[in-house]
Amino acid sequence: MSSADRITAQMAFLNEADRLKSVSRATTLADGSRPENSAEHSWHVALYALVLAEHAPKGVDASRVIRMLLLHDLVEIDAGDAPVFGDHDTAALEAKESAAATRLFGLLPGDQGNAMRALWDEFEANETPDARFAKSIDRFQPPNQNLASNGGSWITYNVSYDAMVARVGSKISNGAPNLWNWLQPRVSDFFARMR
Amino acid sequence: MSSADRITAQMAFLNEADRLKSVSRATTLADGSRPENSAEHSWHVALYALVLAEHAPKGVDASRVIRMLLLHDLVEIDAGDAPVFGDHDTAALEAKESAAATRLFGLLPGDQGNAMRALWDEFEANETPDARFAKSIDRFQPPNQNLASNGGSWITYNVSYDAMVARVGSKISNGAPNLWNWLQPRVSDFFARMR
Ligand SMILES: [Ca+2]
Repeated sequence: MSSADRITAQMAFLNEADRLKSVSRATTLADGSRPENSAEHSWHVALYALVLAEHAPKGVDASRVIRMLLLHDLVEIDAGDAPVFGDHDTAALEAKESAAATRLFGLLPGDQGNAMRALWDEFEANETPDARFAKSIDRFQPPNQNLASNGGSWITYNVSYDAMVARVGSKISNGAPNLWNWLQPRVSDFFARMR
Repeated sequence: MSSADRITAQMAFLNEADRLKSVSRATTLADGSRPENSAEHSWHVALYALVLAEHAPKGVDASRVIRMLLLHDLVEIDAGDAPVFGDHDTAALEAKESAAATRLFGLLPGDQGNAMRALWDEFEANETPDARFAKSIDRFQPPNQNLASNGGSWITYNVSYDAMVARVGSKISNGAPNLWNWLQPRVSDFFARMR
């Protein structure tokens, strides 16, 4: 494949990626004015990873984490965003996201599509230190948006403190215990004030 | 400064950064449905850099380019987006953006704020190979959005082919000649069909 043909394939991918700007999330902007979309969320979590990298466990490669986070939500172009506090059929969702990954990364030149698919698979598997830190950052941003917007998706989904700790806190502390230690008292205070 | 105090300062910065999602640009989404905002644009150009890195001149560090692009538009929170085909007082805009950088990067712990400010200054100066590639990517995305949306900001600002080449093409070819060589015939065809 010539260099120009590779650019043509890469631009087909990058034009399709544009659709992530139209995928809506349960979380709002910090000022509560509207739901956040998955493209701007992806930017925000990549910036989180850049700024908070010093709090990652030893051995985490921040540049790989940033790459994972830039890609992590692309499958939502076909599969939509599954709110963390919503109910969904996990097996059906995973099949849909996997088909989306095949279609989207398949737009790229073969070698590059395979490498990006592998990075997305690594993120999803949540086993390597890079993936675990990336997943923790992805879980750490929404509660901070909710604290800023006075409840956000916690109100929409009628979430309790215990449910928040079980579904989100556990995942943040898995890959970024320092960040969970910082966040936990703030979340606990918020829910105590709501009672 | 303790690790927890650093996180507190970093979160003040990341919460303030959220406002970039409300800064509107002249370019639209690829489907023309609404103007793009600067946060989702920042995500898109970071993804461009990740995908198109192989077309960068030798010696360019893609990870540094991605970091620059994640930060490059933050000053627009205070200074707004200055459309490339609009008229503006360059000296006044630069002063406004510099004050914005001082305020925003000043929210971070001192060492980190200085490092991020230096990266933004490097991007703005457009002299190092990393900055020149980053700036080229930032200029390469909007014409691709315009081609996808059948004219976009070229129509809004009544732009001629020659003006496009002078203001945008020259900057793309400065840091990424391969990308300009790919784009130029596509843009030329578009303007020929419009005539
Ligand atoms: Ca700009």
